[in-house]
Amino acid sequence: MDFNYSPRVQAMLRDLGDFFDAHITPNEARYRAEADKARAAGKPWTPNPVIEELKPLARERGFWNLFLPRSERAPEGLSNLEYAPLCEVMGRVPWAPEVFNCSAPDTGNMETLERYGTEEQKARWLDPLLDGRIRSAFLMTEPDVASSDATNIQCSIRRDGEDYVIDGHKWWSSGAGDPRCELFIVMGKTDPNADVHHQQSMILVPANAPGIRVIRPLTVFGYDEAPHGHMDIALEGVRVPASNLLLGEGRGFEIAQGRLGPGRIHHCMRLIGLAERALELMCARVRTRVAFGRPIGEYSVWHERIAESRCLIEQARLLTLKAAQAMDTVGNKVARREIAMIKVVAPKMAQQVVDWAIQAHGGAGVSEDFPLAQFYVAARSLRLADGPDEVHNTTIAKLELKRSAQADGDAGSRTARRPADKS
Amino acid sequence: MDFNYSPRVQAMLRDLGDFFDAHITPNEARYRAEADKARAAGKPWTPNPVIEELKPLARERGFWNLFLPRSERAPEGLSNLEYAPLCEVMGRVPWAPEVFNCSAPDTGNMETLERYGTEEQKARWLDPLLDGRIRSAFLMTEPDVASSDATNIQCSIRRDGEDYVIDGHKWWSSGAGDPRCELFIVMGKTDPNADVHHQQSMILVPANAPGIRVIRPLTVFGYDEAPHGHMDIALEGVRVPASNLLLGEGRGFEIAQGRLGPGRIHHCMRLIGLAERALELMCARVRTRVAFGRPIGEYSVWHERIAESRCLIEQARLLTLKAAQAMDTVGNKVARREIAMIKVVAPKMAQQVVDWAIQAHGGAGVSEDFPLAQFYVAARSLRLADGPDEVHNTTIAKLELKRSAQADGDAGSRTARRPADKS
Amino acid sequence: MDFNYSPRVQAMLRDLGDFFDAHITPNEARYRAEADKARAAGKPWTPNPVIEELKPLARERGFWNLFLPRSERAPEGLSNLEYAPLCEVMGRVPWAPEVFNCSAPDTGNMETLERYGTEEQKARWLDPLLDGRIRSAFLMTEPDVASSDATNIQCSIRRDGEDYVIDGHKWWSSGAGDPRCELFIVMGKTDPNADVHHQQSMILVPANAPGIRVIRPLTVFGYDEAPHGHMDIALEGVRVPASNLLLGEGRGFEIAQGRLGPGRIHHCMRLIGLAERALELMCARVRTRVAFGRPIGEYSVWHERIAESRCLIEQARLLTLKAAQAMDTVGNKVARREIAMIKVVAPKMAQQVVDWAIQAHGGAGVSEDFPLAQFYVAARSLRLADGPDEVHNTTIAKLELKRSAQADGDAGSRTARRPADKS
Amino acid sequence: MDFNYSPRVQAMLRDLGDFFDAHITPNEARYRAEADKARAAGKPWTPNPVIEELKPLARERGFWNLFLPRSERAPEGLSNLEYAPLCEVMGRVPWAPEVFNCSAPDTGNMETLERYGTEEQKARWLDPLLDGRIRSAFLMTEPDVASSDATNIQCSIRRDGEDYVIDGHKWWSSGAGDPRCELFIVMGKTDPNADVHHQQSMILVPANAPGIRVIRPLTVFGYDEAPHGHMDIALEGVRVPASNLLLGEGRGFEIAQGRLGPGRIHHCMRLIGLAERALELMCARVRTRVAFGRPIGEYSVWHERIAESRCLIEQARLLTLKAAQAMDTVGNKVARREIAMIKVVAPKMAQQVVDWAIQAHGGAGVSEDFPLAQFYVAARSLRLADGPDEVHNTTIAKLELKRSAQADGDAGSRTARRPADKS
Repeated sequence: MDFNYSPRVQAMLRDLGDFFDAHITPNEARYRAEADKARAAGKPWTPNPVIEELKPLARERGFWNLFLPRSERAPEGLSNLEYAPLCEVMGRVPWAPEVFNCSAPDTGNMETLERYGTEEQKARWLDPLLDGRIRSAFLMTEPDVASSDATNIQCSIRRDGEDYVIDGHKWWSSGAGDPRCELFIVMGKTDPNADVHHQQSMILVPANAPGIRVIRPLTVFGYDEAPHGHMDIALEGVRVPASNLLLGEGRGFEIAQGRLGPGRIHHCMRLIGLAERALELMCARVRTRVAFGRPIGEYSVWHERIAESRCLIEQARLLTLKAAQAMDTVGNKVARREIAMIKVVAPKMAQQVVDWAIQAHGGAGVSEDFPLAQFYVAARSLRLADGPDEVHNTTIAKLELKRSAQADGDAGSRTARRPADKS
Repeated sequence: MDFNYSPRVQAMLRDLGDFFDAHITPNEARYRAEADKARAAGKPWTPNPVIEELKPLARERGFWNLFLPRSERAPEGLSNLEYAPLCEVMGRVPWAPEVFNCSAPDTGNMETLERYGTEEQKARWLDPLLDGRIRSAFLMTEPDVASSDATNIQCSIRRDGEDYVIDGHKWWSSGAGDPRCELFIVMGKTDPNADVHHQQSMILVPANAPGIRVIRPLTVFGYDEAPHGHMDIALEGVRVPASNLLLGEGRGFEIAQGRLGPGRIHHCMRLIGLAERALELMCARVRTRVAFGRPIGEYSVWHERIAESRCLIEQARLLTLKAAQAMDTVGNKVARREIAMIKVVAPKMAQQVVDWAIQAHGGAGVSEDFPLAQFYVAARSLRLADGPDEVHNTTIAKLELKRSAQADGDAGSRTARRPADKS
Repeated sequence: MDFNYSPRVQAMLRDLGDFFDAHITPNEARYRAEADKARAAGKPWTPNPVIEELKPLARERGFWNLFLPRSERAPEGLSNLEYAPLCEVMGRVPWAPEVFNCSAPDTGNMETLERYGTEEQKARWLDPLLDGRIRSAFLMTEPDVASSDATNIQCSIRRDGEDYVIDGHKWWSSGAGDPRCELFIVMGKTDPNADVHHQQSMILVPANAPGIRVIRPLTVFGYDEAPHGHMDIALEGVRVPASNLLLGEGRGFEIAQGRLGPGRIHHCMRLIGLAERALELMCARVRTRVAFGRPIGEYSVWHERIAESRCLIEQARLLTLKAAQAMDTVGNKVARREIAMIKVVAPKMAQQVVDWAIQAHGGAGVSEDFPLAQFYVAARSLRLADGPDEVHNTTIAKLELKRSAQADGDAGSRTARRPADKS
Repeated sequence: MDFNYSPRVQAMLRDLGDFFDAHITPNEARYRAEADKARAAGKPWTPNPVIEELKPLARERGFWNLFLPRSERAPEGLSNLEYAPLCEVMGRVPWAPEVFNCSAPDTGNMETLERYGTEEQKARWLDPLLDGRIRSAFLMTEPDVASSDATNIQCSIRRDGEDYVIDGHKWWSSGAGDPRCELFIVMGKTDPNADVHHQQSMILVPANAPGIRVIRPLTVFGYDEAPHGHMDIALEGVRVPASNLLLGEGRGFEIAQGRLGPGRIHHCMRLIGLAERALELMCARVRTRVAFGRPIGEYSVWHERIAESRCLIEQARLLTLKAAQAMDTVGNKVARREIAMIKVVAPKMAQQVVDWAIQAHGGAGVSEDFPLAQFYVAARSLRLADGPDEVHNTTIAKLELKRSAQADGDAGSRTARRPADKS
């Protein structure tokens, strides 16, 4: 047992920190100015030039596709445990991960293609994604049903000769607002009569296929998050070649299980970086604002919040790292308990830390002068995205209850001390 | 002691409910469509026609200026206790209060003018405000200091001959985005060397006075809340006649004290209506969404949240009503403990209830398809606006500690049971 | 609507306060000394002489059986709304209610007899109880089943000729430790095959009936609460005349419903008094203890806790009073929502306030030098006694969900703003 | 970075688990029976024979003094990181640690003597302690002052010729109730005029020295925790040879700093074991109790609590282990942030988990039939003992604020995005 990062990771962290100091932090104001300019010009759905400028620099420094586990296409790939602290740093600035080609949902989509795609599928979609030339979206959630229960899915994928025909209504299709988005990975049902875990399939759909209609961008607490966006999309008689199916009919649930683990943990890593930054902002603010004769950082109510923030962040980080190691060593399926745990813990932690940071900033905290309101929205949304807290809690609880049932006898009666007298 | 509303209030509540059913609820979609249309046309800062259409109807039905306590200009005025449940109903729809000329910050500004204005000031500003012909803003908060401590205020109001000259930087000037806004009530310092509660003064400034520069609208999370808006405003050498001063030099703090009580409690009343609606939405959602074979409303985790919401709302309502009665009977100053209490309790309650409602709605909860994200932002912001929670908590605590000190002897030692033996 | 106590109640409150100052508070140390002496002598289950001395004084002053609603035996009885603030005061000292013959479970038992007893039953049991000459216990909870679900009850009440024969195992029979306890009201099943709400009956059993075996006193967090006590009791072939049955076979559930309302609300009233006293102790302590150069009451973390305590107490009190009025005006059955609410709110509130008070006292807070540890135990236990929080929360939630279902149409869809476009 | 225990620790964990299965768990009922018997005989302050029987078995198996870091007297000693999981297991049963000579406060006292004692002091006190022949107590806390602020200490240690004379009043002297307790380590002031961290000294005092008077055992929520006990002790003119002083005059604060780190972390390790067991009991209970037609473990409100318990425990364990490694590698002083963090986190976590476990057990949970009420008391008390939460939170916060101040520039302004326009 050892809580220190490996020398390799420590070195990468230093280098990545330098990259942030040199290229990310100094560009925050410009990123925002470019976004404002595009919006003022009526073109909010335009890729931000800052990203495209920085990508070659990041790639040159070796900070490219770090998320991708060791594999044919990533012989020098990192383990989840190694990637975690780097991903955390990237999470400090919401737009930074894309600079390193490490942004959601492309990372999950690339990992899905890498694991489950045919060579043909990889050549067409994975390579340009790994190159950062195109973007992608993942169409799973539907507006009319509780999508955390995969059996609720209504989107139909129907075989018709050499093709599949897709009809459905999806939303929260993140990244589909980006004009560079060329691929939709769509979850639907090929056989509603199969057993519950074999009704679903996943299929690759070109973003410009006939029958696809982007209805509108959704907002998240007032943000449209352009140019990335979260789209509301109708698929009406969309036809794609049968070879676009991933892995095989009825294997959609299996792919989702494999895919969501890494995606969830990456979100959590980024949230830890986000919470660290919120705590930094909180400390900086309370040190410098004066009320009733003293910096507010001298009031003990802020000591409580700063200390609890630090404790929450450290614990969430350790749990995330432990989950990462579990995924590396026993696989995503066995590590599902750890993944569920961190998926519940990290967003709630970040939501709390950011809320305090907002409170420390007064009105400035909810405004655009600080990134805190956006941070809050990111954390809050992740208590819903990729499965709401309730679903993960039930997963964790059922594993505990199963373990309890398996325990030799019944711990309750074993430890009860009620006198024999009484029964 | 009696927890029933008076017959008069019950009748008004029925009538107001009918008005909502007939005119407000059916117009929610149209209000939004008009706002979207204005924004799409590049004119978000345009008054929404729905409001102007409904105002005459409301006035005709007698639902006009209900907030205004009994006075010369409101001989039939309601008490705070009577107004509270009506204000609560208005709070169910964020734009509704203006239909009844009962929206912030105009209500506070009108009450300020009614109490402290000269006849000349009333004729020029109060009458058109009471008529709903113009709007107003209140410029107190400053970006560079913790404005909850009035001694921090930096804005200067300097006498120069027959005029005052104002220099300062204000923000969160709510309502200043509205083109009908013609009056700014500005808080500044006339004498920084006076004792701490007599440095400040308030002055009436026409919104179009030379030297006023609206820098930008602020956003609250991702909302700009057009056409109302929260403005960032520079006042540079703004000159107004000396007769525009309210009440007298050095009396700004006194006016603020008198003004903020009603304003705070009105916010709380509206938050209770907002929370009621969030709970209704929560219940409706969990009854109808199915996950893993059952409506989610059958899962006991939702029973907990619904029950706790109901308990929180009921308690906050009772506390608000009690504070309202205190204001009516012992005055805003003596009731400051009650006002501080409800100012802390209501926003926190609403934030929690709305958060659960959002969770019940999944992705839809954070989107614009339901009013919940906006509700959340309203509740969260009120933990900062009109004094952050920390300031009110200290007010409450100091009154408790004072009472404790005044108690005959020391309750601690009176009730200690340590044996005499030991000391 | 009026939040002021009636003149009659205000006068009684003043008198009761005087009685506390004169007779209760000065006797706290002696009560404890007598209890310690009895325990040291190996006789903890002896009535405390302080109680018996004070009872005549209380009775003489008219503070006797105040809990009993207006009825034949209590023509001057108080309403629940009138009794509430008096009961609150009694709750400040755990042993005080008995001085006024207002202590649980006798109050509930007396009310049950008054409502449902025959004249013969009243003459034998109710009159000496009202006189304070005997004590009683209520035997409902069973160790082997979740007793909040009345259908789980296993105790059998079997008709045998002119008698009933009772076999069962009960625990948490509070007050059964007192040597003056002469009556057990026992809940059992007369017909396990009847519909779920008509299987149960209640029967009056003399505490010394053959077949009754008190197994042991239970402890509550280390306290045996002698001489009152919470007993673990076996009933083995206990035989009583058929005339001891209350109201009729199969009516036990109905009686329980009628009985538990007042019992629950009295507990809550007392908890509010207990919480008030905990807050007083907290304030007194933090004003006078110095750490790191200042009284700890000057640290803002204590401002937060004091303020939140005050807000929690005030709100719980108002909710209790409102529930009391509902019971007075619409009856216990219709008021079950209000009763369930206060039953959840008050213990949780008291638990939190007392926990902070303990923290303020350091080690002294968990010791016997202050009543806080005992207060904590009282509050915590009431989250289990008379129905655990979970059961009451489900009651409240189901009423909300029912109201939601009854609402004209579906609030969810009525207020949804999703564009027609999308479905 | 690696989250797996070393092979050596894994093997020891297996062996210790076997020892628990063979000797500790089967003796829980007997331990309690012996304690009850002693109490019934009027001799509660008698060592429990179960402990003495098991000690030789534990020692034979090598489970003896495991807490002691590698040193002259413990050449095979474990690191804190290695000891942590073993200590956690011991914490599952409150009386178990003593079987392994690993119970507080003896562990802290032994470590203090090992580090700071002279050879003569070690020969007289440390060797018999390491042998388990005698017990010891630590007299720091005083009833009349906030003892978390060491400058408040009032106990005087005055040089008088070849002796020191000690006068003071101490309480919460844990373990001083045990008749085998022969040593008191006493903290007092040798020079009240020295600078704040050099006023205090520590001195070794035989438990039977003239002038020592044990006033009474304190209770913790009704428990006297005999035969261990928490004593209230007067020291009146107690005279000991000058050679009994530890390390030197004015070095008491320094010793306390060195001593409290390990003591605090051991408490936390044990609390994690205690919380694990509470969770096991909770799961076993909810699986087997039925209410309203289903085991309560099928209600989602219990899923939430079980899942949150699991998440809280895992995180607290990881934080504890990280703190242990920090103590091993950078020393107790540099690791004070980590120690403060875990000291705040672990008791709060255990308090919450145990509270839910109690709720799952209904009335049984607060009774002596399960260890949960005792567990609760242990967790709650540790939020006060060895420094209240508030003090540790301030320690953590000040380190964060210091780091913030040292950061290059001000993160607040660096990341602020307010347009240059406005200032």
